[in-house]
Amino acid sequence: MIEIGEAQHRVLEDIPLLGRERIHILDALGRVLAQDVKAVRDVPYRDNSAMDGYACRHRDLAGAESVRPVTLKLVGESRAGSPFEGFVGLGEAVSIMTGAVIPRGADAVIKVEDTVPDGSAAVKCLTAPRPGQYIRAQGEDVRAGETVLETGTPIRPSEIGMLATLGHGYVHVYQRPIVAILSTGDELTDLDQPFSDGKVICSNGYSLAAQVMEAGAVPLSLGIASDSEEDQRSRLLDGLRADVILTSGGVSVGKYDFVKSTLSEVGMKVKFWKVAMKPGKPLVFGTIGTKPVFGLPGNPTSAMISFEQFVRPALLKMMGRRALFRRVIEAVLAKDVVSEAGRLHLVRCRLIEENGHVWAVSTGTQSSGALRSMVLADGLMILPPSRRVYAKGTRVKVQILHSNSPLAHASPFWSRDTARDESMLSQTA
Amino acid sequence: MIEIGEAQHRVLEDIPLLGRERIHILDALGRVLAQDVKAVRDVPYRDNSAMDGYACRHRDLAGAESVRPVTLKLVGESRAGSPFEGFVGLGEAVSIMTGAVIPRGADAVIKVEDTVPDGSAAVKCLTAPRPGQYIRAQGEDVRAGETVLETGTPIRPSEIGMLATLGHGYVHVYQRPIVAILSTGDELTDLDQPFSDGKVICSNGYSLAAQVMEAGAVPLSLGIASDSEEDQRSRLLDGLRADVILTSGGVSVGKYDFVKSTLSEVGMKVKFWKVAMKPGKPLVFGTIGTKPVFGLPGNPTSAMISFEQFVRPALLKMMGRRALFRRVIEAVLAKDVVSEAGRLHLVRCRLIEENGHVWAVSTGTQSSGALRSMVLADGLMILPPSRRVYAKGTRVKVQILHSNSPLAHASPFWSRDTARDESMLSQTA
Repeated sequence: MIEIGEAQHRVLEDIPLLGRERIHILDALGRVLAQDVKAVRDVPYRDNSAMDGYACRHRDLAGAESVRPVTLKLVGESRAGSPFEGFVGLGEAVSIMTGAVIPRGADAVIKVEDTVPDGSAAVKCLTAPRPGQYIRAQGEDVRAGETVLETGTPIRPSEIGMLATLGHGYVHVYQRPIVAILSTGDELTDLDQPFSDGKVICSNGYSLAAQVMEAGAVPLSLGIASDSEEDQRSRLLDGLRADVILTSGGVSVGKYDFVKSTLSEVGMKVKFWKVAMKPGKPLVFGTIGTKPVFGLPGNPTSAMISFEQFVRPALLKMMGRRALFRRVIEAVLAKDVVSEAGRLHLVRCRLIEENGHVWAVSTGTQSSGALRSMVLADGLMILPPSRRVYAKGTRVKVQILHSNSPLAHASPFWSRDTARDESMLSQTA
Repeated sequence: MIEIGEAQHRVLEDIPLLGRERIHILDALGRVLAQDVKAVRDVPYRDNSAMDGYACRHRDLAGAESVRPVTLKLVGESRAGSPFEGFVGLGEAVSIMTGAVIPRGADAVIKVEDTVPDGSAAVKCLTAPRPGQYIRAQGEDVRAGETVLETGTPIRPSEIGMLATLGHGYVHVYQRPIVAILSTGDELTDLDQPFSDGKVICSNGYSLAAQVMEAGAVPLSLGIASDSEEDQRSRLLDGLRADVILTSGGVSVGKYDFVKSTLSEVGMKVKFWKVAMKPGKPLVFGTIGTKPVFGLPGNPTSAMISFEQFVRPALLKMMGRRALFRRVIEAVLAKDVVSEAGRLHLVRCRLIEENGHVWAVSTGTQSSGALRSMVLADGLMILPPSRRVYAKGTRVKVQILHSNSPLAHASPFWSRDTARDESMLSQTA
């Protein structure tokens, strides 16, 4: 039996990075860049206007104000996509739209709100612009030749926008692992089979497939194997084309727990068996060639929590991610919690934000079979191995579960009227 | 011009909840339940064993210990899926596997590790079990008739496992909105067109589509319209079958900013125009019938940030979600920040966790055109309208951007060897 940290280390040191593939940028959301992306040209490509208004020479307007406006002669128009090709001379201006190129001669923009028309060929300017005012300089955002996005960057909407800006419709990303999932156990039945006494619907096949998808990988279901080496072997052979193999059940000490030996028969080299944690102790990890194999426990919550600790980080690493682990926060116990695991105890809990604290409350029965407690859980309290009572008010570490933050808000931060309220800012150092 | 809180309120009060659809549970990840789910039977369905071992009568083993073992006669076997049909009498035991039904007569399980075989038909028991020990009681997790999952529940892997356990292969969820996206501007060109001087690649079409997908909705691209009412109208008419319409650009005060009038021509009733925030001031919101229409500003970051504040909560509401808003946390300024917006300023920033604090650092130029600052951003500092300098060390609110928590960890919480370390727990009240 080994510690969880050691087990994670042994899993991750054996995990290969998958190869690259080239995909359209709109298919790349959530993937990880497998190339550096350089800019071939400056962004903006030319000095351009940040406002609708008039491109002018700032010196011409020195001293202009609303009671003493200065009139400029309009000599043309620079539209987004149709630049003014001429020159802006002394006392002249060019009508300009947001995003349009600044014409030669001009060195500032005065916005339309700071002007009044003076006939059709002139404009009265009511303020004096600073030099460079409302001009977005060429290369201000990105310089030609610069590496803008690096290998290993997770691709979010802003990266997709940047890739488009830089002219990339396609991009290299790391491939997604195919994850074969085999459930084992004579008691298991599937959703399309009639239910009978003594049977249990195989939920692990579904919850594990969902966890695989949530991590961004691709599930491949091998169905349910009975507690027979023959059935398990034949299904596992179907799974050998996958990049990762997951089984659930059959890895404990019972006399029908064949999975470990069946996996060895199909070529698995065992790296460890059993981890000092609750739930999830009976976990087998090994490799078939470079292919990681996880023999997860059969209890629904043990399987899910073991997936979180070992399989998810491994899948993320294969896909090129660097942040492999869920966030751990500090929370305050809202009630006493008894830990009698005698090993690292991961207690399913809800999180409640109130009075400036995040409070943690156990979700009730912590039986490894109890899926209900997973449904209710926002996170896992991390309790050390000692058997003891943790009193209400104790601060504990909590590992957040799920990608959708359980601490998202039902109401906006800003109330309907208080956006001007300075109290939104607290003033300490 | 209205405040952001008022604007959000006006948007959300007009947003309809979409109808329901019935889908397979493995397609339901990230969707929201549109039905209550009741249990038709108890889970577990029968009392069953939590361990591999022997089902017995606890009184028979009173006083048993390793130096004074008690021997029980083996009368059968209860396997997962193949229950023992007989009765466990005085001094008898039945070999039992994890998940197998507890035979009649037995009231406890002694685990295999606490026994030694005594020939093939008897077992020596080395401990005295408590009544009910290692028995998972019928209905312990879920009671028949109980509502286990309620309308409005977001579907995560644990809900998918629970749905399978309860026998549901299909489930009603709220439909996903189709979101038509139109980019406007004569200066815009697309990725499959040759680039020329004065042109800008239309990144908004891509970043907004990615934001729509990240929110769980379905983008429908209407392409790029020139600054002509005719082209805009014809493309918008193609978008009227969508549930939501987004445009970007053409909503400011320039003389080619037709989008507002074109939208009105195709039937939009304007609800508000302009929000007191930076970036993102020139925003139009209206409805065509019950269909929400968002005229977003054309600058890349203004469009993305306006989407975050108004469109994303609206899409989530349509899909049945209740937590509509990104998490807001408190962070400490790592450097001085100057706010001269004169209206609510959302400053793109990175977040760094160090020394027990989350530090916020501006990502540099806050120009509305600067996509780079969005690429680098983990969140938005929320700075009140007053023009001032916020000194290093000031605590500010930061709205988290992106679904993948920027505070995920590159290394696990537990080090390789310190899982036993009590220091993982801090001890205050």
